[in-house]
Amino acid sequence: MISMRIDGPLLERRLDELYAIGAEPDGGTYRPLYGDAWARAVERVERWMKDAGLQAHRDPVGNVWGRAEGHNEGKAIVTGSHIDTVRHGGRLDGALGICAGLTAVETLLSSNGKPRRPLEVVAICEEEGSRFNTNFWGSRAITGAIGTVDPEIAAAMRERGLDPAKVAAAARDDIDTFVELHIEQGGVLDSSRQPLAVVSAIVGTAQLEVTVTGRADHAGTTPMGLRRDALAGAAGMIQAVESIARSLGNPAVATVGKVRAEPDQINVVPGRVVFTIDVRHADLGARAALEERIRSLCATIASERGLELDVRLLQERAPVPMDAGLRALLARAAKDVGSTAAELVSGAGHDAQILAARYKVGMLFVPSIGGRSHCPEEATDPAQLVLGTEVLARALQLLAY
Amino acid sequence: MISMRIDGPLLERRLDELYAIGAEPDGGTYRPLYGDAWARAVERVERWMKDAGLQAHRDPVGNVWGRAEGHNEGKAIVTGSHIDTVRHGGRLDGALGICAGLTAVETLLSSNGKPRRPLEVVAICEEEGSRFNTNFWGSRAITGAIGTVDPEIAAAMRERGLDPAKVAAAARDDIDTFVELHIEQGGVLDSSRQPLAVVSAIVGTAQLEVTVTGRADHAGTTPMGLRRDALAGAAGMIQAVESIARSLGNPAVATVGKVRAEPDQINVVPGRVVFTIDVRHADLGARAALEERIRSLCATIASERGLELDVRLLQERAPVPMDAGLRALLARAAKDVGSTAAELVSGAGHDAQILAARYKVGMLFVPSIGGRSHCPEEATDPAQLVLGTEVLARALQLLAY
Repeated sequence: MISMRIDGPLLERRLDELYAIGAEPDGGTYRPLYGDAWARAVERVERWMKDAGLQAHRDPVGNVWGRAEGHNEGKAIVTGSHIDTVRHGGRLDGALGICAGLTAVETLLSSNGKPRRPLEVVAICEEEGSRFNTNFWGSRAITGAIGTVDPEIAAAMRERGLDPAKVAAAARDDIDTFVELHIEQGGVLDSSRQPLAVVSAIVGTAQLEVTVTGRADHAGTTPMGLRRDALAGAAGMIQAVESIARSLGNPAVATVGKVRAEPDQINVVPGRVVFTIDVRHADLGARAALEERIRSLCATIASERGLELDVRLLQERAPVPMDAGLRALLARAAKDVGSTAAELVSGAGHDAQILAARYKVGMLFVPSIGGRSHCPEEATDPAQLVLGTEVLARALQLLAY
Repeated sequence: MISMRIDGPLLERRLDELYAIGAEPDGGTYRPLYGDAWARAVERVERWMKDAGLQAHRDPVGNVWGRAEGHNEGKAIVTGSHIDTVRHGGRLDGALGICAGLTAVETLLSSNGKPRRPLEVVAICEEEGSRFNTNFWGSRAITGAIGTVDPEIAAAMRERGLDPAKVAAAARDDIDTFVELHIEQGGVLDSSRQPLAVVSAIVGTAQLEVTVTGRADHAGTTPMGLRRDALAGAAGMIQAVESIARSLGNPAVATVGKVRAEPDQINVVPGRVVFTIDVRHADLGARAALEERIRSLCATIASERGLELDVRLLQERAPVPMDAGLRALLARAAKDVGSTAAELVSGAGHDAQILAARYKVGMLFVPSIGGRSHCPEEATDPAQLVLGTEVLARALQLLAY
């Protein structure tokens, strides 16, 4: 067993410091892209990087990079995560990957000296859609996927001294591997009492909007048999969404998150209902099959009830498998430090899924207590935070030394 | 068979005239209490009453009465309906009872001369809650049920020259019987091809607000088996509401008209859902039993799913049976003019249910084409409008001559 000698208290202190930046009076923290709290957090991380002996610099979109050169040139090994948060965000989402990455690299540099190849830590500027209607702003810039910049974002960039015309210069083609430590944000590890997981894939998502049209009628004067109640029909469909996903088993999930009835009056039979379905699976074919079964059962329910049905695809994102070699290396790293890692599909999106377009990517998950995330209650056992950081450090050692 | 010689074209012309007062650019008409359109409609009806030889007067809340004295003194026989409309209201709701009542009384006066006892037509100022958070404003004033007047309503009354301090003087204790012709506002008569119904009772209503509390979770990271999805639970309850009412048969109806999910995000499992249930039945015990079965099944669903359930009674109104003698008289009147009348429970509320507290009340329904009401499509076959008016006239003849 190899000990990576991670400084747990230092890790916790850094997490506390970041969590305090953007703290909201009613709980949690909020660091929207290019906001004041965001800028202060970026400065803090930049200072930590410099203090750790890394060469720090900000790229044109505000990603902060801390680099240790290697004995050899070549493509870099990178770790990190995003620095922005949702409103009322927790202490670990994104922040853990940055603090743990920095602590791991710092430990390696002081224990093992200069690496064989370049080793970097990155604080990615935005992942959450925390302020603008954009997701993965930072990682999309790194992969060169951003074309024109929305005027509103451009204005916010200028306020932070960033030049929107230079976004293309954020693109990197000198990265070999990106490894990210993140909290699970779900309850699988916590409920099964496993301390760690290697992510096998990030799920693909399809988001649908379903419109059910019946006929609005007076709730008192219309006998049950003469109704075309859009909400009663939609209720059957909502139940079907749940039971189909259940019947397929993990990692299939399907969720109805939004629902709206019209005319939305207590004494009127709803004539129209609009609801959303979020369908996810790690396998593209399985996700398509899940979506198809849901569509088909909704159509059957609508037809039985004389309702009209319209299903619109709002958004679709393919599953992203993690690099197979990296998955094996992360599992070995876990074993090396005396632990074992489960294999888990990530149900949430992460920067890694964007970066996978150009680099080898891998992810580690530590448990979220009670599965809670995106809220002030977001927490992980400190021993598991240290374990995750140790495994990350060991993986970086295997990759960069 | 007795012919009542109702002037159908005159009836249609009056309905057209009233429908034009308050016509909305995007369809239907709107005559909210004490508004401009309302005031013009009241003036028009008042002029019709005077032209028909009736003594017309407005009471302190703006109900307009047209009275023919009888040979004898004593309590009056009254017919009529309400003059206000919902937004985008149709041509017949309320207006029919006024126009048909006036046409019937006018016909009786010209054919049969002075009645034995006082005979009146009334245009009730408000029934729909068309402007203020009040229902049955006019009929409540007539029965003396209004205590203090809300300041907002008082201000609107003064604009129309009405003195809110005198509301109590609108109360009448010299009414014997109130008979109202109304459209069904549902599809029972139309779908069963019956031209007319005598109302047996006006349903009792209970309105409930149900709050289902589970746990908001990430739609991607929370496996189906670890969820406490408030919306999936609520969907089961919404289906149960429908199937319980169906299984009890007419006149039981139960409707979920409003539903709201929190946090109402496409990628979050709903942690809380609030929905309403409107439960109606003509029999108080049956309505209570229906409500109880719904509450019990909702509790079972909540318990099976580990959800919290809170059911709050928003409003409750007891069923109001129509006067038995009057029901028989209306059925006889239908037979006298060569028709037959079905018996029907009214699923909607009507002024008659308020007036029943002090007077004998009875109601006649004519069909609503396609069951449509409270919309511009509200319509009845002209021959059925004449038939309803003939039966009303015959009933008034039996009562007042």
